[in-house]
Amino acid sequence: MSPYTELEGRFRRIANLGGAAAILQWDWAAIMPVGGADARTAQLTELDLIQHECMADPKLADLLDNAESARSELEPWQNANLAEMRLRWSHANSLPADLVSAFGKAAASCEMIWREARANSDFHAFSQAFAPLLVLIREKAAAKSEALGLAPYDALIDSYDPGFRMAEIDGIFADLGAFLPPFLAQVIEMQAREPAPVQPIGPFPIAQQRALSQTLMEQIGFDFAHGRLDESHHPFCGGVPDDVRITTRYDEGDFASSVMAVLHETGHAMYERGLPKDWRGQPVGDARSMSIHESQSLLMEMQACRSGEFFSFAAPLMQQALVSDGSAAAAFTPENLHKIAMRVAPGFIRVDADEVTYPAHVMLRYRLEKALIAGDLQAPDLPAAWQEGMQEFLGLTPKNHAEGCLQDIHWACGDIGYFPSYTLGALIAAQLFDSANREIENLRPAIAEGEFTPLLTWLQSAIHSQASRYSSHELIERATGRALSADAFKAHLQQRYLDEALPDL
Amino acid sequence: MSPYTELEGRFRRIANLGGAAAILQWDWAAIMPVGGADARTAQLTELDLIQHECMADPKLADLLDNAESARSELEPWQNANLAEMRLRWSHANSLPADLVSAFGKAAASCEMIWREARANSDFHAFSQAFAPLLVLIREKAAAKSEALGLAPYDALIDSYDPGFRMAEIDGIFADLGAFLPPFLAQVIEMQAREPAPVQPIGPFPIAQQRALSQTLMEQIGFDFAHGRLDESHHPFCGGVPDDVRITTRYDEGDFASSVMAVLHETGHAMYERGLPKDWRGQPVGDARSMSIHESQSLLMEMQACRSGEFFSFAAPLMQQALVSDGSAAAAFTPENLHKIAMRVAPGFIRVDADEVTYPAHVMLRYRLEKALIAGDLQAPDLPAAWQEGMQEFLGLTPKNHAEGCLQDIHWACGDIGYFPSYTLGALIAAQLFDSANREIENLRPAIAEGEFTPLLTWLQSAIHSQASRYSSHELIERATGRALSADAFKAHLQQRYLDEALPDL
Repeated sequence: MSPYTELEGRFRRIANLGGAAAILQWDWAAIMPVGGADARTAQLTELDLIQHECMADPKLADLLDNAESARSELEPWQNANLAEMRLRWSHANSLPADLVSAFGKAAASCEMIWREARANSDFHAFSQAFAPLLVLIREKAAAKSEALGLAPYDALIDSYDPGFRMAEIDGIFADLGAFLPPFLAQVIEMQAREPAPVQPIGPFPIAQQRALSQTLMEQIGFDFAHGRLDESHHPFCGGVPDDVRITTRYDEGDFASSVMAVLHETGHAMYERGLPKDWRGQPVGDARSMSIHESQSLLMEMQACRSGEFFSFAAPLMQQALVSDGSAAAAFTPENLHKIAMRVAPGFIRVDADEVTYPAHVMLRYRLEKALIAGDLQAPDLPAAWQEGMQEFLGLTPKNHAEGCLQDIHWACGDIGYFPSYTLGALIAAQLFDSANREIENLRPAIAEGEFTPLLTWLQSAIHSQASRYSSHELIERATGRALSADAFKAHLQQRYLDEALPDL
Repeated sequence: MSPYTELEGRFRRIANLGGAAAILQWDWAAIMPVGGADARTAQLTELDLIQHECMADPKLADLLDNAESARSELEPWQNANLAEMRLRWSHANSLPADLVSAFGKAAASCEMIWREARANSDFHAFSQAFAPLLVLIREKAAAKSEALGLAPYDALIDSYDPGFRMAEIDGIFADLGAFLPPFLAQVIEMQAREPAPVQPIGPFPIAQQRALSQTLMEQIGFDFAHGRLDESHHPFCGGVPDDVRITTRYDEGDFASSVMAVLHETGHAMYERGLPKDWRGQPVGDARSMSIHESQSLLMEMQACRSGEFFSFAAPLMQQALVSDGSAAAAFTPENLHKIAMRVAPGFIRVDADEVTYPAHVMLRYRLEKALIAGDLQAPDLPAAWQEGMQEFLGLTPKNHAEGCLQDIHWACGDIGYFPSYTLGALIAAQLFDSANREIENLRPAIAEGEFTPLLTWLQSAIHSQASRYSSHELIERATGRALSADAFKAHLQQRYLDEALPDL
């Protein structure tokens, strides 16, 4: 057996363990009884440990060396696979075992403390747990920096979004940061002049909301023979490509938030489902990166499904599913529901933000993360820096820490370097949708008919089937013919919120 | 670290992998979308393989040897744990790797063919796949016989029910086999003289059946913070002790079958929940054996919950949960529901059998398994031997193979040696309940009040908390003061079906 072939076998085993863990994590978040947490933690820790042992096996390093010195014998996709194997190996072996262990414990402890601290808006309690974790995060960044030859924060970003660097993100965010504040002011002013949309009045029973979500998922192409829809505290997409499981949460008073979450997660799910079957279990066969993943969910939710075309198709379905007696007709017109979906308002909470103000939340976090890793910002100084940033980016001052720097779980878990992916994903989504719209004849009219096949076929070819064969940057260029920029996103916002949104709509 | 302590760590890791697999198996049977089967198979195969690699590690053998030579330093429970470790090691290492692999493939293939063969009642198709599997089953029995120093069929039984041997089972089954036929004739004759019970007429909506099941489970003591109730094709109890998951299936026309399945599985679940927390993850902390497990489900279902006392408590709950308007009063009297639960009739299908005729199904299979392993019976001769046995044990001749020798999945999966556990479990259940009834003041009146705490407290002390500290035989003797026999079971049948069941009840 060639070293490369042997590597395929080893990575397939690791992928099977990762797949087992993915289902167990879904189970935890969606349906596990609370008393199962300790046992589940032990199971997941064990699966992690074994994967780590596989990656740390000196034989694996030898196999990688040997396979790399015989690269010319490999097919192009195999070479791409080998490069992905090496990237994973580098990340997995960049940290000393005692740091991994100390980090895991500090993060688990900080997350627990954060849950209570957020509930009580108690920054001091959080800070006490976060300060030692931050020391370890910096150590982790330094170790990854050393191993990967990247700046420390770049090395952290690279674990979520390989190939994205501060140099590029700084430029993109500067462009967006200059565009958004005046644009936001214009949109708010325009929306203030319009009559407010009519709010649909619930209660909307959960069973009916679920049935509506299933209908829309099927319409988009989700195959329930290969996936599920369930409930969890935060919507997410989990499982494995042949068994993709998305979740949402239902609010009987507000069906729209749940439906939009389902559409978002369906975008993630269609990406997973569209990964090439021939490469299952190989690193090259996995989704490319967090930003590309987010581009697929945001393309579905924001580009395709917050459009007037989508609501002209979906509004009658929504009315039919949720209102038995034909009442509330004014609330369920396509125009009114679209107007609700387009409401823009600066707010404190990132996960509740609209697509216009969302980037400000990310840019604030990106700025603070850079400072935290550079050592320019210390744990106790977070609230002041947060307040200053929120005022600068959105003109708001949080009343308490719960709606300020304690709102997100990421830092409490030690996840630093992830936030940029959300906004990169939004920009990629806009650029991809713009290209799809140019290349597919009548894409928007098709969506107005509930016909998603043209869009999915295009995405399948351009993105899903490519998996990790190309870098994120190559993938975007191949799909859209140009390098990533904020241009398409800005044009999209301009068109949706100003050009098309005439006051007399 | 002492060799024994190191063994605890290694077996804990194996247990975590087994726990992960248990949840994934539950998921498969209860909620997995069909398209997830290939990925799940790969995940479970990987978890199996790693557990096998852990057991086959030569270092583990050294640790066992070293720990055994320092036995005197260990606490009694640790010595019991060490003995269980050795037993598992012996079973796991009794088979050459190529036999394990060939067996796994042949069994998977035979199971697939069996599914279709049973649907078509096509014995020839099954036999073609079973014949080569039978060769491997015999090889497995021979290898286990060699490694464990047991007769080949005893070595197979030992994997499910350590310590049970043909010599003992032959005697018990002979006793039971002499008792049952004349007893059965008497019961049937008596029941024929009574007016038939009134069948409750559905439909009984599934949501209401589920709510009823949950109520009864909680009444028995099932803690939904540590478990779930779901649906699957065949009811089962899965998961891990701190997250124990039972399933049932609902038939809108027949609520009783689902409720009785839930009570049965709740018996299994209470055993798992009652295993000692201090021994989690250690072999000594696991359920003792298949027959003891079955004793806990049958004690709950057959001894406690098919009693007149149970129905005097449960019948009003059932009526309230299932009949909205107080109609069907005659069907929902405790006496009538109890009468239905006690109906006895010989039938072709084991899983549908009542407690009087069930042992005949097991004795038939036990006889055939012995002959198959001894080489006295070949695959193609199964139908003839089956017909002969069914005629002898129950006076019935199956009309086709689907209701004959193709009805069970066990042999198709290569599971030979398991069937005796069902009837051993029934005997143990009767003997335990008889002792509980002597030792607990007013046990039966408590059940009539829906008060299960006295029974569960007794079981917890006598059985659950002992886990695998003692052999099945010691456990039974310690709990009941006598060796296992069919006496209590025979007395139970005599009392329930003849003495108490007066025609004018």
